[in-house]
Amino acid sequence: MYTEAIDWTTDGRVRLLDQTRLPSAEVFLEIDAIPDMVEAIHALRVRGAPLIGVAAAMGLAASALRQFGNGHPRTRAEVEEWVLRAGRRLSAARPTAVNLSWAVERMVRAARRVLGQAQPFDHGWPVVEELWLEAQQIWDEDAAMCEAIGDAGARLVPREADILTICNTGMLATGGIGTAFGVLRRAWETGRVRTVYACETRPLRQGARLTAWELARLGMPGVVLVDGAAAALLARGRITMVIAGADRIAMNGDAANKIGTLGLARLAAAYRVPFYIAAPRSTIDPATATGKQIPIEERGGSEVDPAPGVRVFNPAFDVTPAPLIRGIITDRGVLRPPFSRSIARILEQEGP
Amino acid sequence: MYTEAIDWTTDGRVRLLDQTRLPSAEVFLEIDAIPDMVEAIHALRVRGAPLIGVAAAMGLAASALRQFGNGHPRTRAEVEEWVLRAGRRLSAARPTAVNLSWAVERMVRAARRVLGQAQPFDHGWPVVEELWLEAQQIWDEDAAMCEAIGDAGARLVPREADILTICNTGMLATGGIGTAFGVLRRAWETGRVRTVYACETRPLRQGARLTAWELARLGMPGVVLVDGAAAALLARGRITMVIAGADRIAMNGDAANKIGTLGLARLAAAYRVPFYIAAPRSTIDPATATGKQIPIEERGGSEVDPAPGVRVFNPAFDVTPAPLIRGIITDRGVLRPPFSRSIARILEQEGP
Repeated sequence: MYTEAIDWTTDGRVRLLDQTRLPSAEVFLEIDAIPDMVEAIHALRVRGAPLIGVAAAMGLAASALRQFGNGHPRTRAEVEEWVLRAGRRLSAARPTAVNLSWAVERMVRAARRVLGQAQPFDHGWPVVEELWLEAQQIWDEDAAMCEAIGDAGARLVPREADILTICNTGMLATGGIGTAFGVLRRAWETGRVRTVYACETRPLRQGARLTAWELARLGMPGVVLVDGAAAALLARGRITMVIAGADRIAMNGDAANKIGTLGLARLAAAYRVPFYIAAPRSTIDPATATGKQIPIEERGGSEVDPAPGVRVFNPAFDVTPAPLIRGIITDRGVLRPPFSRSIARILEQEGP
Repeated sequence: MYTEAIDWTTDGRVRLLDQTRLPSAEVFLEIDAIPDMVEAIHALRVRGAPLIGVAAAMGLAASALRQFGNGHPRTRAEVEEWVLRAGRRLSAARPTAVNLSWAVERMVRAARRVLGQAQPFDHGWPVVEELWLEAQQIWDEDAAMCEAIGDAGARLVPREADILTICNTGMLATGGIGTAFGVLRRAWETGRVRTVYACETRPLRQGARLTAWELARLGMPGVVLVDGAAAALLARGRITMVIAGADRIAMNGDAANKIGTLGLARLAAAYRVPFYIAAPRSTIDPATATGKQIPIEERGGSEVDPAPGVRVFNPAFDVTPAPLIRGIITDRGVLRPPFSRSIARILEQEGP
């Protein structure tokens, strides 16, 4: 059991928690067709960059089982064409999420390992098997990455900590216990956390809807506040540390994350509260030197929904400059400033 | 024409814009009974501390007309008892808004001026007349106060200014053009404003619902952003100045205002953008030495509406320390630091 956000059904379909219905209803989708998984990703029924990658891989495996599991005769070309087409459709569901295309590429390579073998090929079963193994491995690796982040980060948390976080970075966003939320969870399990404060995270309210749901489900002591109340909370001297996730980290340590993170980092600095980022090593982009090079997606005004007749400024992310970050908690340990040096060091290490 | 938020009907009732229906519908209530005005104030159909005071006064006058306008014989005691009872019910509609009880007390004093006169008393008409004059004067004074703030503040605004604000401080919050919004409006009318950026202002969204509605209605160039996006906006170097209202100002210049204001002030300081407060002199409380003495109302969790099973931290206000404030724009001119001295000076002046 890693999470209830995603699982296999006993008959080999993907069981997906519909996050758009949370917290008012816990509705599960059972998916074994590419169009259904594309729709689920596109409509944000499954979200969180790592979890989207896991969901796409599992969706591809489940759809392959339905397509080729009957054992009917198939040529290599038929199977390869189906896998490539399925991969393209999944990747296009949300073109900006890097984990999605990365996971789909791994699945296509897995299929080709079988398709490229010399032995006779007369049905799709061997490809289905390989896709299942690969999807399970992508999920397992993501869960292990979360565990490593959680363990590394929990050691930073002092006793009786009150920790402020933003957005959702837990089991609804990953294939495991989460990134920043994984740290909170492991720290709580080891008796260090008094209260988790979760910013609502407008416009999509991932904090109030999803992080609050996870906190309640785990029995963790949680408090939700509107984003504008973070300064008042910090001013009261209540907060021990702030921990946020990241969508992309530049080579100098600048970190892009959900809109609102930069404000928290600036306020934490003003009130002398340590601010941490928690993210897997794979979030560091060797092609991005500094945060200035990170393109910031601006989304539509309907998410903010003001009175008609005004425009909307709705960036999905902001960039926190490295000097505001006390440490970056990764699955390879906690990186410390100067990040240009500590980041270069872990990128040289072997492994995924 | 001061505003459409409140007006008299031709037959002497109060015409009130139901702000809970904005921006999706512009519904007007016509009120001439105390219970209806109490309900409108309690349910936030009319809001904004100055406007609540004006509405209570006008509601009392309109209800008195309905009660005594038929000219039936009445004793002094009957009329006085009715006025006192009406005033008590209005004051209790929102016990924390200081303008409300202040306006009701003025109305009761006005009634007593007539009731205390020596000439014969046989019907309520003279009291009704006095209540109408007093209500109109409360409204007029509030509108004049807004004009004075707007004129004083507009002179601070440079050409091509992009100004960030929070909550609603315009004609939906006052009996005139507004406080902070009045500054924006006068500056825009004199060609100085390029864009007004309005924070959504969770949890009740006064920025996205009400300020956006005012901006659109006046044809002012407005942009709405979620509260968490203010840091990203300031980081882009786009903002010329930040102007917010105030609910209470301490004698040292500490200012309580809508939750989120403190964060804006801290972020403005971090990005070296001047931060101003705009409020009438009456907002300064001689009984409050510093912001530490201002009680902060914590409101219910349903306004934030998170997933069940977590608690909510929902303070309605925060306190911005005086050192973060570049100036306080009042109807008596712009106060500059050190505020303890400039505040003491204007409190010594004559007049309302």
